[in-house]
Amino acid sequence: MIVFDGRLHDGDTVSFDVSDRGLTLADGLFETMLAVDGRVFRRAAHLYRLLAGAEALTIPIARTRLEADLDLLLSTLPPGEAVVRLTLTRGPGARGLKRPAEARPTVLVGAAPWPREAVMRPIRLVTSAIRRNETSPTARWKTLAYVDAVAALAEAEAAGADDALLLNGRGDVACTTMANVFAVDGDVLLTPQPDDGILAGTTRALVLALAREIGMRTKEMSLSAPEFAAAEALFVTNAVRLVAPVAGLDRRHYVAPHPRVIEIADAGGARIATECGRDPRA
Amino acid sequence: MIVFDGRLHDGDTVSFDVSDRGLTLADGLFETMLAVDGRVFRRAAHLYRLLAGAEALTIPIARTRLEADLDLLLSTLPPGEAVVRLTLTRGPGARGLKRPAEARPTVLVGAAPWPREAVMRPIRLVTSAIRRNETSPTARWKTLAYVDAVAALAEAEAAGADDALLLNGRGDVACTTMANVFAVDGDVLLTPQPDDGILAGTTRALVLALAREIGMRTKEMSLSAPEFAAAEALFVTNAVRLVAPVAGLDRRHYVAPHPRVIEIADAGGARIATECGRDPRA
Repeated sequence: MIVFDGRLHDGDTVSFDVSDRGLTLADGLFETMLAVDGRVFRRAAHLYRLLAGAEALTIPIARTRLEADLDLLLSTLPPGEAVVRLTLTRGPGARGLKRPAEARPTVLVGAAPWPREAVMRPIRLVTSAIRRNETSPTARWKTLAYVDAVAALAEAEAAGADDALLLNGRGDVACTTMANVFAVDGDVLLTPQPDDGILAGTTRALVLALAREIGMRTKEMSLSAPEFAAAEALFVTNAVRLVAPVAGLDRRHYVAPHPRVIEIADAGGARIATECGRDPRA
Repeated sequence: MIVFDGRLHDGDTVSFDVSDRGLTLADGLFETMLAVDGRVFRRAAHLYRLLAGAEALTIPIARTRLEADLDLLLSTLPPGEAVVRLTLTRGPGARGLKRPAEARPTVLVGAAPWPREAVMRPIRLVTSAIRRNETSPTARWKTLAYVDAVAALAEAEAAGADDALLLNGRGDVACTTMANVFAVDGDVLLTPQPDDGILAGTTRALVLALAREIGMRTKEMSLSAPEFAAAEALFVTNAVRLVAPVAGLDRRHYVAPHPRVIEIADAGGARIATECGRDPRA
């Protein structure tokens, strides 16, 4: 079941204008969210980021329309967990790059099973040769332009890893193909800063807050690849997995999960329970 | 009229699976081609580049299918010029970045009016703050990930220019949002080399050959922004406009069109006449 054009449709096939710039030029944005029993975790943060991205790309969209389409999809979900994807495009357009004067944006909402087996599963990373372009709007916003991430992930999997670590053009650590990255050094939690070509992850922001609550100091700063790799422990975050410990990066091995990472993940689970009624990780 | 799923459809609206990774992740490629009286200029070069890109992205597609869909669309065109776009995506997929084991690619072909008024019209460029990521598959292949180009073009137009010059991560010149770039210095024609983050333009390759035919020496080499700007004349190339002289770059002005640029453009027009029956620029 999906929501397209404000209405529910069975299956994924709908009557669609293939001049949609989301399809022709990746001219759009999306959010991937965890829903528990029909309630979206960090819903306001996700919608805020999507709206901020839409403003940056000048895609005119009312929050009320996004909220209504999201609610309509949520109303169809059975009890349990789901991954909900909300996609926004600029809508149909004539040939060429020039943005149409009057956009008619497309909104699409769908759900997929939540990968429970991924919870706290340690992952191995390899550093990709594909850099994250910190000068690009695709680094700051969750646009549809995911070619680099798809290619870097495929290369990582071919190398026997679970995900790829992406450095930015300056050679500093940015993120993985699907997650923000963190390093633990004693009581200090380190993560790249916004200018390093990272998405402002909703889980990233939550984890920074949770770390402070459990008595850690947090620093958002540029981290060279060697500095990052030298940390005591590493982990990654996204809205689907919440927290995943890193067991390996290239040839290095790490304690996974590190006690501090368990603490943060447990605090995150408690926060899901507060917002959505229960902790799906339990 | 478009071709989708191997058949002709009136208008742009078709029954479409919106889990298509072209829409959700920009996981696909396209070609934009000039057709004259139903014949595509540099057709083999366009198809070759699309197939090479598909191989790089591991999208399984037979040349015969692309040829048949293209021919079907061409058969509907009235006499005259058209811009034909051939789009290939990996097809539908489950949520997530992982490439499906068995792709069912989508092929889409459409046509748009040829912008005759753009022929040899001098353009003004401004240098964008968005860099071209020379480490990315999106720089080497004509993928659907056009967010950077759309944003850089919008910024250039807001600054009163016609297009944006993109430098790569090393600060060398790459291309514009929609064209390859060339610099004329006496009898020498300079253009960035493939590793500088450029698309292997079909018109770029043709122009290098034509320049040699009219007695110029050609050099593919990395060009710093100041070296490029210091040239005697600049021009850009793509399949739609063929050649466009550059009248300005940031605060610099250039002779546009420079006599050498006219010579190259005329040789290009003659080549179109040979391949397609007549020179649409005439």
